[in-house]
Amino acid sequence: MTYRPPVRDMAFTLNEVAGLSDLLGKGAYEDVSADLVEAVMEEGAKLAADVLAPLNRSGDAEGAKLKSGAVSVPSGFAEAYRRWVEGGWGSLAATTEYGGQGLPVALSVAMQEMWNAACLSFGLCPILSQGAIEALTAHGTEEQKNIYLARLISGEWTGTMNLTEPQAGSDLNALKTKAVPQGDGTYRISGTKIYITYGDHDMAENIVHLVLARLPDAPPGTKGISLFLVPKFLVNEDGSLGARNDAWCIGLEEKLGIHGSPTCVMSYGENGGAIGTLIGQENRGLACMFTMMNNARLLVGTQGVAIAEAAYQHALAYAKDRKQGRPLGSTLAPGEMAPIIEHPDIRRMLLTMKSLTDASRAICYATAVAIDGAHAGDKREEAQARADLLTPIAKSFSTDIGVEVASIGVQIHGGMGFIEETGAAQFLRDARILPIYEGTNGIQAIDLVSRKLPLGNGSVVKNFIAEMRETAQQARSSNNKLLGEIGGALDGALDALDKATDYMLANLKSAPNDCLAGASPYLRLFGTAAGGHYLAQSALRDPAAKARLALAQFYAANVLPAVHGLLAPATAGADSLFALTADDLA
Amino acid sequence: MTYRPPVRDMAFTLNEVAGLSDLLGKGAYEDVSADLVEAVMEEGAKLAADVLAPLNRSGDAEGAKLKSGAVSVPSGFAEAYRRWVEGGWGSLAATTEYGGQGLPVALSVAMQEMWNAACLSFGLCPILSQGAIEALTAHGTEEQKNIYLARLISGEWTGTMNLTEPQAGSDLNALKTKAVPQGDGTYRISGTKIYITYGDHDMAENIVHLVLARLPDAPPGTKGISLFLVPKFLVNEDGSLGARNDAWCIGLEEKLGIHGSPTCVMSYGENGGAIGTLIGQENRGLACMFTMMNNARLLVGTQGVAIAEAAYQHALAYAKDRKQGRPLGSTLAPGEMAPIIEHPDIRRMLLTMKSLTDASRAICYATAVAIDGAHAGDKREEAQARADLLTPIAKSFSTDIGVEVASIGVQIHGGMGFIEETGAAQFLRDARILPIYEGTNGIQAIDLVSRKLPLGNGSVVKNFIAEMRETAQQARSSNNKLLGEIGGALDGALDALDKATDYMLANLKSAPNDCLAGASPYLRLFGTAAGGHYLAQSALRDPAAKARLALAQFYAANVLPAVHGLLAPATAGADSLFALTADDLA
Repeated sequence: MTYRPPVRDMAFTLNEVAGLSDLLGKGAYEDVSADLVEAVMEEGAKLAADVLAPLNRSGDAEGAKLKSGAVSVPSGFAEAYRRWVEGGWGSLAATTEYGGQGLPVALSVAMQEMWNAACLSFGLCPILSQGAIEALTAHGTEEQKNIYLARLISGEWTGTMNLTEPQAGSDLNALKTKAVPQGDGTYRISGTKIYITYGDHDMAENIVHLVLARLPDAPPGTKGISLFLVPKFLVNEDGSLGARNDAWCIGLEEKLGIHGSPTCVMSYGENGGAIGTLIGQENRGLACMFTMMNNARLLVGTQGVAIAEAAYQHALAYAKDRKQGRPLGSTLAPGEMAPIIEHPDIRRMLLTMKSLTDASRAICYATAVAIDGAHAGDKREEAQARADLLTPIAKSFSTDIGVEVASIGVQIHGGMGFIEETGAAQFLRDARILPIYEGTNGIQAIDLVSRKLPLGNGSVVKNFIAEMRETAQQARSSNNKLLGEIGGALDGALDALDKATDYMLANLKSAPNDCLAGASPYLRLFGTAAGGHYLAQSALRDPAAKARLALAQFYAANVLPAVHGLLAPATAGADSLFALTADDLA
Repeated sequence: MTYRPPVRDMAFTLNEVAGLSDLLGKGAYEDVSADLVEAVMEEGAKLAADVLAPLNRSGDAEGAKLKSGAVSVPSGFAEAYRRWVEGGWGSLAATTEYGGQGLPVALSVAMQEMWNAACLSFGLCPILSQGAIEALTAHGTEEQKNIYLARLISGEWTGTMNLTEPQAGSDLNALKTKAVPQGDGTYRISGTKIYITYGDHDMAENIVHLVLARLPDAPPGTKGISLFLVPKFLVNEDGSLGARNDAWCIGLEEKLGIHGSPTCVMSYGENGGAIGTLIGQENRGLACMFTMMNNARLLVGTQGVAIAEAAYQHALAYAKDRKQGRPLGSTLAPGEMAPIIEHPDIRRMLLTMKSLTDASRAICYATAVAIDGAHAGDKREEAQARADLLTPIAKSFSTDIGVEVASIGVQIHGGMGFIEETGAAQFLRDARILPIYEGTNGIQAIDLVSRKLPLGNGSVVKNFIAEMRETAQQARSSNNKLLGEIGGALDGALDALDKATDYMLANLKSAPNDCLAGASPYLRLFGTAAGGHYLAQSALRDPAAKARLALAQFYAANVLPAVHGLLAPATAGADSLFALTADDLA
C-alpha cells in the first residue's frame, strides 16, 4: 500500500470549500480555471504516487549520510528531485518575472501536501527553498534576484533557513553568529547554526543559505539581527559556480524521524569566513525572516495534513484487509472472521482520522486562498487579515492532529503497528517534529492570542466567527436532518468559541498572562470549531455527496464536542499554573 | 538526568489514597505496616535508580540480538537481573507456600512501576513471569508448582505468555497451534507464536513458556483451547535441567521502541515436537489465560504510569535548566533569559503531565488494593468486583496518557526532543506499545462496557460513582476555596459520567452496538473522572500539602473538563459510524 493523492477531494476542498474558485478567471488569475487547477493536481499526483511514495520507507531505512564533509541523501532522492524540477513543480506560484508560473499559492500548497504525504523527508526540501524564494522576492536586490531567485524558482538550486543556534532556539535575542562587512558589499559570516534542514545534500549543484547574524555594531536583541545570503558555492558574475564557500555541514542529528532529510549542524567561517551578501536592510533581518517563515508555517501545517492523509490511507487499507473477530449480529459463516473495519471502535478511529484530516486540510487551504486573496482578490486587506489570523491555527492544529492521526493509525494496526516494517510507526516518528519546528505550537498559540486576536480591534476574529455562524445557520435551516444536526453542533461549538474569544479580548491588556496561560487550549478550540465549519461547508456545497455529509455529521457528533472540554482550560487563567513554584515541582 | 522514584508520593498514594493502609495490620497482612511498605519501596528505589535507570538509553541503542538461535539482551541487563533476583523482588506478593513473601499485590505493583519507569525494556520481563506465576498458582498441578512455580517466584527462571499467532491476534478463535497427547501425561506442541516478549534471552537458565494450543479433538473456537507449560529446557525429577526442548526463537521483530526487550517469533515443534504439560483442564485454557492476563493488564497500566513519571521527571529537569525567552513582567536583567518552566505554556504542559501521571497512578494502585481486598479484606466480593471494574480503566487510561505524557515531554524539549540523544523521544517510542499489547485499549473498552458495567446489575459501577460523589461533596463542603472548586468540578464531571453510564446500562441489551460505538470515549470519560476523584482524595487526606492541593486544583480546572467533550461521542450511538460502508471510505 502506497499513498495516492485524493485529487478529487483535494480539488473540491480547494476550489469550493476554501473558495479558490472565487479568485479564478479574473485579475492575476484570469487564465486559471478550476479545471486547470484540478488538471495540474492530477499531473502532480502521478509524480507523488509513482516516484516519491516508493522512496518513503527506503529513505527512512537508509537515511541521509555525512561523509568527508558532504551529505548524501538516500538512494533515489536525487533522481526524484531531478524529475520534480523538470516538471516545473518548484515554480508554480513564483513570480513570472523570474521564471515562475504565477499560479495561485493555494495550488502550490495543495501540491506540497502531495509531496509530503508521499515522502515527508523529500517534501521538506522544497519547503525550505520556498522560504528563501519568498524572502528574496520581497527583500532581495536586483542582483540577488537575477542570480539566486531565478535558480531557486527553477529548482536548480535549493534554499535553507539558518536561524537556530544552540543557545538560541525560540528566543532569537540570544543569536551570536557574526557578520563583518568587508567594504566591498560583502560580509564575512562566522558562527554555528543547528537544525538546518537540507543544510547540505547532493541533489542540486548549489545551496542558498539564508543566515541570521549580527553586525559588529548591532544593537542587542532582535533589533540587531540581519539576514544574509550565503551560497555553498560562490557565484561568478555570469552565474557560473566559483569557489567553495566556507559553509560546511559538520554534523547530522540522529533523529526520531524524517531520517531521509538531513538535519545539519552548519559551521560558517571556521576557515577564514563565509562570504555573504545582505538581504534587505542592516538590522532589519527579523522582518525578512518573518516573510520567510510565515508561509513556511502554513506549509508545515500542510505537512501535518499530509502525514495524516498518508497515515489514514495506510490504516484504511489495513483495516479493510485484516480479518479478526466478528461484529455483533454478523451473518458470516461459523469460523469466518470479518475485516476489522466492521468493528465499531476501528470504524470510530478511521472516521476520526479522516474527519480530522479533512478539517485540517480545509483550514490550511483556506489560509492559502486568503494569501492569494491578499495579492489578487477584491478585498485584499481583509484577505491578508484572514491569512494572518488563520496561519497559527493552520500550523498548530494541523500538526497536532498530524501526530494524533498517525498515532491512531498505529493503534489500528494492533501489534503490527509497532513493527517498523509495516510503515505505520514511521508516520508517527516523522510527524512528531511538525508541532516543534517553524515555531513550536506553543509559540503559535501565543501569536494567535497576543498578535492575531487584536487585529482590527478584534473585528478580524469576530468576522470569521460571524461567517461560521452563518454556516451553522444555513445548516440548521436545511430540511436535511443530518445537516440540521451538524448546524446545531456547530452553533454550540461557536458559543464556546465566542466565550473564549471574549475572554481573551477582554483580558489581553489587563491580564495578559491569563491569556497566555489559556492560549494553547484556545487555539485547539478554535481549530476544532473552524474544522467543523469547513466540513459543514463541504456538506452544504455538495449535499448529494453522501460521504461528505456523513463525514461532517460524524465530526459534528464525535469530534467537535471536544470544544466543550476546552473552554474551561482556555479561560482558567494563570493562577492554577503558578500556584506552585518551579522548586515545588519534583 | 536519570529517573528517581518519588517514593514519598508513591507510598502516600498507595497507603492513603488507594487505601492499602486499611488492609494492613490484620488478617493476611497482620505483620505489614504502612511504614514497612514505605521502607520496602525505599530499598527498591535504590535498585531502580542506581542499577536499572542507567541501562535505559544504552539498552535502547544496543537492543536485543538473535544469533545462532539464541537471544542476548543488552549489556548490563543480565547483571541487573541477577541483582534484582538477589533482592527478592520477584517474590514480594507471591504465596509463601512456594517461597514468596506474601506481601500485598499493591506493593508489588508499586515496585513494578519503579522497574518500568527506570527501564521499560527490563521491567517487562518480570511482568511476563508474574503472569506465569498467577496462572500456575491458580491452576498448576502440585508437581508444576514444586518445580516451576517456585523457581519463577524466586526469579531463577522467567516466564512467557504465548497467545498470538499471525492469523490470531485479538481473536483467539483462530488459534492453530496443536498439542498432541503422548499417553505419558505429556503433550507434543507444534506451531508458531508471534510477539513473544522475552521468548528467549540469556538472563536466566531456563524459561517457562505458557502456550495456548488445541488438542486434536478440540471443539472449534475458544472452547477448544488449552494451556500448556513448555519449558525451554526439560527438567529432571530432581529439578536439574535436562535436554533442550524444541522451542526456539526464530526471529526478532524490529520495533518502534522497547529495543532492549526481545520480541520473539517462537517456533514450537519444528524438530519433532516440543514437550509440554497441561495447565488446568483440557479445553479450559481460556480461563487459565484470563488468570494470567488479568493482572498483566493492570501491570501494563502501571507501565503507562511508569513511562509517564519517567518522561515527566525528564522534561521537568530540562524545563528548569533550559533558558529561553522571558516571561511577561520579568525582573531579569536585560539580555538574561529565564528557565522555560517560567513560561505559562510550558508550565501547563508540565502540570498536565504530572497530574495525569498522578491520576493514573492512583487508579492503578486502587485497582491493586482492590485485588488485595479480594484476598484479604472484610468485603471480598465487593473488592473483587471493584478490581474487575477498574482493571480495563487502569489498563487503557494509564497507557493512553502514558503515550500522551511522553509526547508532551518531547514537545517541552523543543527541537532537542526530536534528537534521540536527549532520551525524550525514547519514552514516546517505548510507550507506544502499551495501548496495544495485553488486549488493545479498544478491547478493554468493550470489556468495560459489555462485561463490567453489568456486574451486580449495574450496582458495582453505581457504588463507585456514589463513592466519587461523596468525595465531591466532602470537597465542596470544605472551607478551603480551592477544595470547593475541586468539588464543584468533580460533581460536574460525575454528572457527565452518570449520564453516559445510564445510557450504557439502558442500551446494553437492546442496542449493544450503540454501546460498543461509544465504549472508547466512555472509558476515557470514566478514567478522567476517576482521576479527578483520586486527586481530590489526595488533597482531602493531606490538605496541608500545598503541592497535592494545587495539583488537584489544576487537574480539576484544566484536565477534568475534557469529560464534557466526551459525553457526546460516548452516547452518540453507532449510526454515525456506519452511515458509510467500508467501500464508501477511501
